[in-house]
Amino acid sequence: MAVKSQTKYLWFETKKLRDYIRITDEIAAFLKESGIHEGFILVSAMHITAGVYINDWEEGLIQDIDTWLEQLAPENPAYHHHRTGETNGDAHLKRILIGHQVMVPVTEGRLDLGPWEQIFYAEFDGQRRKRVILKALGI
Amino acid sequence: MAVKSQTKYLWFETKKLRDYIRITDEIAAFLKESGIHEGFILVSAMHITAGVYINDWEEGLIQDIDTWLEQLAPENPAYHHHRTGETNGDAHLKRILIGHQVMVPVTEGRLDLGPWEQIFYAEFDGQRRKRVILKALGI
Amino acid sequence: MAVKSQTKYLWFETKKLRDYIRITDEIAAFLKESGIHEGFILVSAMHITAGVYINDWEEGLIQDIDTWLEQLAPENPAYHHHRTGETNGDAHLKRILIGHQVMVPVTEGRLDLGPWEQIFYAEFDGQRRKRVILKALGI
Repeated sequence: MAVKSQTKYLWFETKKLRDYIRITDEIAAFLKESGIHEGFILVSAMHITAGVYINDWEEGLIQDIDTWLEQLAPENPAYHHHRTGETNGDAHLKRILIGHQVMVPVTEGRLDLGPWEQIFYAEFDGQRRKRVILKALGI
Repeated sequence: MAVKSQTKYLWFETKKLRDYIRITDEIAAFLKESGIHEGFILVSAMHITAGVYINDWEEGLIQDIDTWLEQLAPENPAYHHHRTGETNGDAHLKRILIGHQVMVPVTEGRLDLGPWEQIFYAEFDGQRRKRVILKALGI
Repeated sequence: MAVKSQTKYLWFETKKLRDYIRITDEIAAFLKESGIHEGFILVSAMHITAGVYINDWEEGLIQDIDTWLEQLAPENPAYHHHRTGETNGDAHLKRILIGHQVMVPVTEGRLDLGPWEQIFYAEFDGQRRKRVILKALGI
């Protein structure tokens, strides 16, 4: 079978410094545009102070994730990175913790996700324009 | 060359609440079924309180990983997520720490893993039926 | 379109026990060799005490990442894993934190990375020869 590839970029500019935005529907719409029935979609944050993850769409848990990331990778003026004039050292570490990309399987023309799996964009240094790449490869 | 795709689901229902199950042989068997010689296999936990990772098959280290995950993402009645009636907030965070998927490279018809790399299913909220998707794409 | 696949291994033997080595140029050179225009490159550490990640190429941040990994997954003689004679329990956990692989999107024949995204090999138990697999699949 002939392989198809499709690429799209999602843009974000959050009002808050940290935010968690559900993007499952955008990925499903992209899948339709791609015409792919079997394969993968890469969803990857292109800025190094943002991430992409798959977890629960439940406000309490999203709060828990935010609190937990701040505990393990706190805002802190003392990061060496801040000698460059930056103030977002914590955001780089939060991206590492949550991960910056997922591969979404495509089966029979639909996103093959579990019953509670939802795809999220995680912003850790917002209020500027940032991109996420969607790239599908399949048949 | 013609591309092939193959999909399979592994089911788990652990007796323990937390467990770490080696699944390398199941992935190797799936690779044979797929007939793929060059490409990728996605191995991805479809439930948001479980993970998939690649590390050492050594009982002491598996204990260390479990202790460490509990230190960094502890069981705690105070998670906001528990207002929904759930009790598994920690399991969602442990999944984030360990990761929920890996891409296994396939070269000359075999899993192209390093000498000590073994693929594991990580259960953080067990005693219920859960799935892992295996999806191969390649030639 | 006909699918192509290409595989290559990068070897590392660091002088330091822990090290962070930028490999973006090596991946770009491999992409040229592969002749792929649209698709993915998997970059994956084949040894379980090493990782691969994408983040900033800035010395201060690299120091911050190293300090942070040591805080969250410290060297410690008490790991159960050390009963086997090993001394690198922390290195296994650091690999889990930073992740061991990335999928790099390829668009119009180039690595489709964000403006600051750089690919790194992370060594946590160096002074021995280790491999990273590069595997491209695409059209």
